[in-house]
Amino acid sequence: MDRPLEGLTVVEGSAFVAAPSGGMALAQLGAEVIRFDRIGGGIDHKRWPLTPDGASLYWNGLNKGKRSLAVDLTGREGQELVTELIGWAGNFITNFPASGWLSYQSLSARRSDLIMIAITGSYDGTTALDYTVNCAVGYPEATGYFDDPRPINHVLPAWDLLCGQMAALGLVAADRRRMNDGVGDLVTLALSDVALATVGTLGNLAEAQVLGSQREAIGNDLYGAYGRDFVTSDGRHVMIAAISGKQWLSLQQATGTTEQVHQLAAELGVDFADEGARYAARHRLSDIFLPWFMDRTISEVAEILDAEGVCWGPYQTFLQLVTEDDRCSTQNPLFSYLDQPGVGQHLVPGSPLSFASSPDRGAATAPRLGEHTEQVLAESLGFTSAEIGMMVDSGVVATAG
Amino acid sequence: MDRPLEGLTVVEGSAFVAAPSGGMALAQLGAEVIRFDRIGGGIDHKRWPLTPDGASLYWNGLNKGKRSLAVDLTGREGQELVTELIGWAGNFITNFPASGWLSYQSLSARRSDLIMIAITGSYDGTTALDYTVNCAVGYPEATGYFDDPRPINHVLPAWDLLCGQMAALGLVAADRRRMNDGVGDLVTLALSDVALATVGTLGNLAEAQVLGSQREAIGNDLYGAYGRDFVTSDGRHVMIAAISGKQWLSLQQATGTTEQVHQLAAELGVDFADEGARYAARHRLSDIFLPWFMDRTISEVAEILDAEGVCWGPYQTFLQLVTEDDRCSTQNPLFSYLDQPGVGQHLVPGSPLSFASSPDRGAATAPRLGEHTEQVLAESLGFTSAEIGMMVDSGVVATAG
Repeated sequence: MDRPLEGLTVVEGSAFVAAPSGGMALAQLGAEVIRFDRIGGGIDHKRWPLTPDGASLYWNGLNKGKRSLAVDLTGREGQELVTELIGWAGNFITNFPASGWLSYQSLSARRSDLIMIAITGSYDGTTALDYTVNCAVGYPEATGYFDDPRPINHVLPAWDLLCGQMAALGLVAADRRRMNDGVGDLVTLALSDVALATVGTLGNLAEAQVLGSQREAIGNDLYGAYGRDFVTSDGRHVMIAAISGKQWLSLQQATGTTEQVHQLAAELGVDFADEGARYAARHRLSDIFLPWFMDRTISEVAEILDAEGVCWGPYQTFLQLVTEDDRCSTQNPLFSYLDQPGVGQHLVPGSPLSFASSPDRGAATAPRLGEHTEQVLAESLGFTSAEIGMMVDSGVVATAG
Repeated sequence: MDRPLEGLTVVEGSAFVAAPSGGMALAQLGAEVIRFDRIGGGIDHKRWPLTPDGASLYWNGLNKGKRSLAVDLTGREGQELVTELIGWAGNFITNFPASGWLSYQSLSARRSDLIMIAITGSYDGTTALDYTVNCAVGYPEATGYFDDPRPINHVLPAWDLLCGQMAALGLVAADRRRMNDGVGDLVTLALSDVALATVGTLGNLAEAQVLGSQREAIGNDLYGAYGRDFVTSDGRHVMIAAISGKQWLSLQQATGTTEQVHQLAAELGVDFADEGARYAARHRLSDIFLPWFMDRTISEVAEILDAEGVCWGPYQTFLQLVTEDDRCSTQNPLFSYLDQPGVGQHLVPGSPLSFASSPDRGAATAPRLGEHTEQVLAESLGFTSAEIGMMVDSGVVATAG
């Protein structure tokens, strides 16, 4: 069966992570996503990391499975082409300034039921990037070890990525209403609102506002239950999580510490069935577990933890992940092994969403810039090869060459 | 106009972050989301942080705007009720084991076009939580300062949150196909696949696999361009990002360092218009900018940076966020000031997605456990008050009391 979004066509005018990752999510579910870029590439086209040939692993990673149109965005003719294309598709996702010829008002004049997702910085119109949002919402001050007061940024651009998924959800939600009622919509999504809403969702905002307290940096300790990282005899780190009662019991069984834990509970007069009691006594508990890990290699630890059903994971670098973890291989249907021009053969993920009816996970390479210029202009707007050739000659559009 | 997902009804059987945040995203867009829990509450019902009254800010934050059904999940009668409810709704999102009476096979026997989103740990059936996934995918080893080799976990449960948004997207995407073709589907979504796909999307996987290199911990330096945090004379931290050419120029203008930066470029024989050149020379560049920040308070810094259009943000604790940042107030239409039973009046976010046609952002309080038991059973399955009363008496369901 077809992938679920086959038949949906989306035009994307974007840069960096948020809008491109949202468009890519739609493409992996079967939508036809046409990203347009200025001739020569947008601001993100050569973003690091780069291959020795100068190909951006970042750009290629974020634009998989899309079609690429390269067009002069400064001149009237190119702007007209993009406007017509958006009208033809009926769906537009962007993090470009939604003003002038790219305003909803202007674009919807061609297509009254247009759905447009406009990603912005902050709701009040000010600029914001993942970096400048993340520092403001509290997590860097709560990240890392208590012995080091420096704030620590996340490396994962979590706000951008969440924003991208929300943009994709917003588009399909608006499309659902259009299918029912025939109406389009302008949907705005501010990056800082994504972060602010999350701080509220996770209770950190209420904790500060209602309780007047806030989370402090507790290293890799798991907040509110028991869990932390341990070092093995061969110098590897493992993360242990004991949140459920079953996880908590299996950790004690695996490490042969049931009796010691029982004695500690008696000494403290607490019941470790209460996850909060585990958290409060976490340092004492860790003293009990630490020697077991220090005395064993990671492979010995892995065998016993797995046998006892402990919830755990190894710390891995990116290199270890790709060389040692079977989940990060073509054994996992998430991945295909594809040849990306300018990059070479490598593992390419599709959508994490797996539809039983359609095993195609949408894994695909990224386009070369302008690779689909001719195809898109012919299929969408009905231009002939001769007409497209003239537009190439006059610099209105460009092909991949 | 109605919110975009009005008319969509979703049953949620869930715990913790991923499935609940996905269900909540749907509820905020107008779907009717009915979360069922065992009588007395599920494993996450008392998760920290707690108020002095024992209310979980975590549970309340993640279940806003849902209806709550409390039901005995161990007995046949309660399982039958939930099965009927899922059949009536036609949509089910869960991170419970999708087996036995909660298998797609069993549930779809009542409703052939059922859409079910089943969130799992890893694709191979093994358990995984955000903690045990995050350690394995490389980011903790690349987080923090180069002078401290300890891996650093993220505090934000980014994988769970991304998984939740993907689950919501998967449901609405599957619903789109059902509207077109009349078919339901089982959609599985493994938490570790969410993380693995992201490592691929951001280029970290290709960097390791194709280039044989990987990102190292660089503190709060912005990778691949210029940006970092600076300390002000009053001890506050600010994050600066200079990725675009405009951002780069405005940083120099604001700090009065244009000439010094020019001299450094000449000395090194590089062109800082190339963002990679900025990254390579970032320590030398920071030496130029540091004194400007050290000599000024954060309010002096803020005034000048804003006037020059620099892209920046202050580091804020959760307390500073909620007391000092206007974006985190009811000035921002994202937020409402609501009274959550057991918690009190506080800022409650709605959906970050803002639909021009329907200003309702879906901000709502969380239900009390079993608050909607009677209403749900009456409206969905047509039970009378007397019948529901008998089920309460026999312990099959419970109300909020």
